[in-house]
Amino acid sequence: MSPSTRRATLRASLRDRELDALLVTNLLNIRYLTGFTGSNAALLVSAESDETSVFCTDGRYLTQAERQVPDLERVIDRPCDVALATRAGEAGLRRAGYESRHVTVEALDALTDAAGPAALVRAPGLVEELRLVKDDAEIEALRMACAAADRALAGLIEHGGLRAGRTEREIARELESRMLDHGASGPSFESIVAAGANSAVPHHRPTDAVVHAGDFVKLDFGALVDGYHSDMTRTLVVGQAADWQRDLYELVAASQAAGRQALAPGTALDAVDAAARGVIEEAGYGEQFLHGLGHGVGLQIHEAPALSKAGAGTLLPGMAVTVEPGVYLAGRGGVRIEDTLVVRQGAPELLTLTTKELVVV
Amino acid sequence: MSPSTRRATLRASLRDRELDALLVTNLLNIRYLTGFTGSNAALLVSAESDETSVFCTDGRYLTQAERQVPDLERVIDRPCDVALATRAGEAGLRRAGYESRHVTVEALDALTDAAGPAALVRAPGLVEELRLVKDDAEIEALRMACAAADRALAGLIEHGGLRAGRTEREIARELESRMLDHGASGPSFESIVAAGANSAVPHHRPTDAVVHAGDFVKLDFGALVDGYHSDMTRTLVVGQAADWQRDLYELVAASQAAGRQALAPGTALDAVDAAARGVIEEAGYGEQFLHGLGHGVGLQIHEAPALSKAGAGTLLPGMAVTVEPGVYLAGRGGVRIEDTLVVRQGAPELLTLTTKELVVV
Repeated sequence: MSPSTRRATLRASLRDRELDALLVTNLLNIRYLTGFTGSNAALLVSAESDETSVFCTDGRYLTQAERQVPDLERVIDRPCDVALATRAGEAGLRRAGYESRHVTVEALDALTDAAGPAALVRAPGLVEELRLVKDDAEIEALRMACAAADRALAGLIEHGGLRAGRTEREIARELESRMLDHGASGPSFESIVAAGANSAVPHHRPTDAVVHAGDFVKLDFGALVDGYHSDMTRTLVVGQAADWQRDLYELVAASQAAGRQALAPGTALDAVDAAARGVIEEAGYGEQFLHGLGHGVGLQIHEAPALSKAGAGTLLPGMAVTVEPGVYLAGRGGVRIEDTLVVRQGAPELLTLTTKELVVV
Repeated sequence: MSPSTRRATLRASLRDRELDALLVTNLLNIRYLTGFTGSNAALLVSAESDETSVFCTDGRYLTQAERQVPDLERVIDRPCDVALATRAGEAGLRRAGYESRHVTVEALDALTDAAGPAALVRAPGLVEELRLVKDDAEIEALRMACAAADRALAGLIEHGGLRAGRTEREIARELESRMLDHGASGPSFESIVAAGANSAVPHHRPTDAVVHAGDFVKLDFGALVDGYHSDMTRTLVVGQAADWQRDLYELVAASQAAGRQALAPGTALDAVDAAARGVIEEAGYGEQFLHGLGHGVGLQIHEAPALSKAGAGTLLPGMAVTVEPGVYLAGRGGVRIEDTLVVRQGAPELLTLTTKELVVV
């Protein structure tokens, strides 16, 4: 779907709410609606048409904006949000929505002053609602991001990068470098490489700790492609796997499979969490599963919907989510297995294709 | 200065404003006040003492919080901001400040509900005000970040990494890899490598464009060390420098020197900009200097103070800022020269030590 089609969809939602325009100030929402990738911008989407919509950025992005946003009027000004609020007032708009989940209390004062006669109305989450369901272009970017991560991990293993004696930090760095080789513009978040007892820390940062034979090594990482984030966790064993490691791995794998199988349009978000959590609870490890089952991914690494006990709502076809149960045994080690998937009619589409069999390297 | 000393300083500012506490929700401000580096937290700093202050994060960061925030009461809850607003109400506080430059309009509703009898009062910028002047620990981190960038650039040049035939992207990647070799946890922002005519684009993203003999190559990059950002730009010539390139370079270098010389405690921020800008305007290139002279650096790559025409206020000893004039000749090429410096009594302390003579490689 092109940015202009997305703006047309947004326009329908503005008319439903009797808004004359939406002042978009969140950069990811602006990127979604225009394709602009710079670090400073605002966008006034009129409920009427693109002809009366305006994009604003500053002088640093003059040429970039010409290239990326050729189809809208462009204003070069600073601060952009205030410039477009002023514009809303001057254009005689009566009710302009603003992104009240992103606009701060102080910023609202400045916007209200600038808008003058135009009333600024809370309009939380309008663009996020569109972003919940990914279009084909977005899913293709997610596919490429997941492929870059898959290939990086395959290369790391194939070339002996995962071995006793290496540090977590060295492994993380090689993994990130290999993602760049495979087309990523960067890692999609700070990679987690956790060896031995560190694998029991859900969000461990790579250290100079050395991998030992017999260690679990948990790798949670992703690639960024065209602004879209992949997210995958695999837990491997170096050397030889002990029985408790195999048992723990099988338990988490069974839970993860149950979570994936529950991914279907119409299923309640908390029910997906429960499907995976139930497997772990039955085995008596409910207390060691310290986090939600998964989250949406897209232009953000964490976005709606939340697959957790607190998740409200149901799955829709085209949502992209992670499924990532984990069991963490403090002082010993932990296992997490995570995929990125797209909800489809029937079975979900798996985007992270690395095997989920226990890999011993 | 230790986090607890910083909290004590903040406490004095709370008492001045007759606030019983400050609810800190900005993650960088929380890091500054506690040392916590996770991605989710809130902090309630009581005006009384650390004994009645509370830190909150979620289950993923349980062990990390024990290690990084051993000296405060810790609560594990989600969402953290709401949990601590509730706490403020339960503790019988009358006036609790909140960070109104960071709290969104929607979030304030939730906090107000949670705080119950405690009145939430706007308290913008209290921690940012402390962060304006860097303490010794912060300056040491900035020094290390600048050194990593200096060494990376020296290594790049020494090993022939900057040569005709290479792409901007390859050069950016080698530069970033070398920063990691020298202790950076990552680049402090997306590196700019701009060759030939691309050097005339102030914020150019590295592409597959190839460096040619006779090109300007503009490198704007930095390293992240302990959460602190370095920022440096150098513009080199590959092969042989033409006269117009030498002239343009000398002009920008003279402007940059004038900017550095104006860095003294008590000088108005806009006067520093004017000192550098005047040199370029006198030469007739004022229109080609498209941005402000510089900005503060610290836990953010761009933070207060702004050294620009619009900058209000004066320099203080201990402020860390960039000085980065540029002249951009569209279609031909541009030059920017940027240092990170600390304002001191007398001459400023230069943190980025790479030569500013024109380097021809």
